[in-house]
Amino acid sequence: MTATALPPSPRTRVRRVAELASYEQAALYAIVDAAYLCHIAFHDDKGSHCIPTACWRIEGHLYIHGSNGSRMLKRLQESDVCVTITHLDGLVLARSAFNHTMNYRSAMVYGQFEKVSDIGRQHAAMDALMEKLVPGRLAHVRGGSAKEYAATTVLRIALDEYAVKQRQGGPLDDADDMAHAVWTGELPFTHGRGTAIADALNTCELPPYAAAWGTESA
Amino acid sequence: MTATALPPSPRTRVRRVAELASYEQAALYAIVDAAYLCHIAFHDDKGSHCIPTACWRIEGHLYIHGSNGSRMLKRLQESDVCVTITHLDGLVLARSAFNHTMNYRSAMVYGQFEKVSDIGRQHAAMDALMEKLVPGRLAHVRGGSAKEYAATTVLRIALDEYAVKQRQGGPLDDADDMAHAVWTGELPFTHGRGTAIADALNTCELPPYAAAWGTESA
Repeated sequence: MTATALPPSPRTRVRRVAELASYEQAALYAIVDAAYLCHIAFHDDKGSHCIPTACWRIEGHLYIHGSNGSRMLKRLQESDVCVTITHLDGLVLARSAFNHTMNYRSAMVYGQFEKVSDIGRQHAAMDALMEKLVPGRLAHVRGGSAKEYAATTVLRIALDEYAVKQRQGGPLDDADDMAHAVWTGELPFTHGRGTAIADALNTCELPPYAAAWGTESA
Repeated sequence: MTATALPPSPRTRVRRVAELASYEQAALYAIVDAAYLCHIAFHDDKGSHCIPTACWRIEGHLYIHGSNGSRMLKRLQESDVCVTITHLDGLVLARSAFNHTMNYRSAMVYGQFEKVSDIGRQHAAMDALMEKLVPGRLAHVRGGSAKEYAATTVLRIALDEYAVKQRQGGPLDDADDMAHAVWTGELPFTHGRGTAIADALNTCELPPYAAAWGTESA
């Protein structure tokens, strides 16, 4: 596989702790694909807003969706925005207070969302969301009606202008602190899955994907 | 305890699925205190930005910190911003594709950050961060030097203008779909802690807080 990396733009070039930055497409896709939601920053006449919403990737675009009536979805098509995904992996314990840090994987994407107007593409995008959430479930649910699709806006943003910043591993202490006697290392967070909970009104057997859920790591 | 709730402002009043909204202070504090990081939306001459950063709460303020050289920290003191925290708790599986949803706890805070200039307050704020990350560790690390404090900016934002939106429980299906035979329920995410990992250069015994880390839920 050929590694793909786009050069950073003036607004994606990481300046703080730049040695943690990456512009590799594979690093971006790994962070996006591990996420179920993103945070989107946009600006309107009331100021800046930071909204969490479900997201998924199809090839070189990140997708979101919502009601046609959403103020956010309208506004996102009118100007550039910033989409950020962050996974927190651990607390890093150093010898000095100020060298404590966190391990994380984060991605920022800049650009403008566009509406997926073509009906076929809209259906394919919604199918891809279901397939991401619960692979294999799509064939068993009641599919979307024409009315439901008509009331739903699907937007996508190109994964072209982005920066990845991530940290892993133990602390980096100052040389003068190495003799200070305190435990150093990482306290990890886990991103796990609990046992599937059947709804009170459920009448069906637990399907394999739900039975397997609590036994896999997310 | 008296329940405290502030009335929503024009920009914090939740319009989409408003029945999931809350303006209770206790709900806000629970979401903030369960978080190690927030996403901050702000705007400058390059557009909107969404930056993840560590956060902690002291009484009625949310705190962040960073290098004096940070463009973001400078800009955050110049105009209103939006701070958002989101915890994703599960996938909710309904009978129809479009009634699938997620369970989550989210909080949005609007306002302007102010610099914590008083040295005593700056020290207390940084101590509170360490105490949040690893209770009991502060006394054992090498404390901050005058130079380190001088190079660090601590900002805080009042937790006064906010909205909480959260969902829990099973799916809400359309009445017409109730006879559709498919398993319904929730696939939960867990927010866990892994076993502490000692650094390769560590020379000290595992302290109680690190030994207990992997055995508690985060």
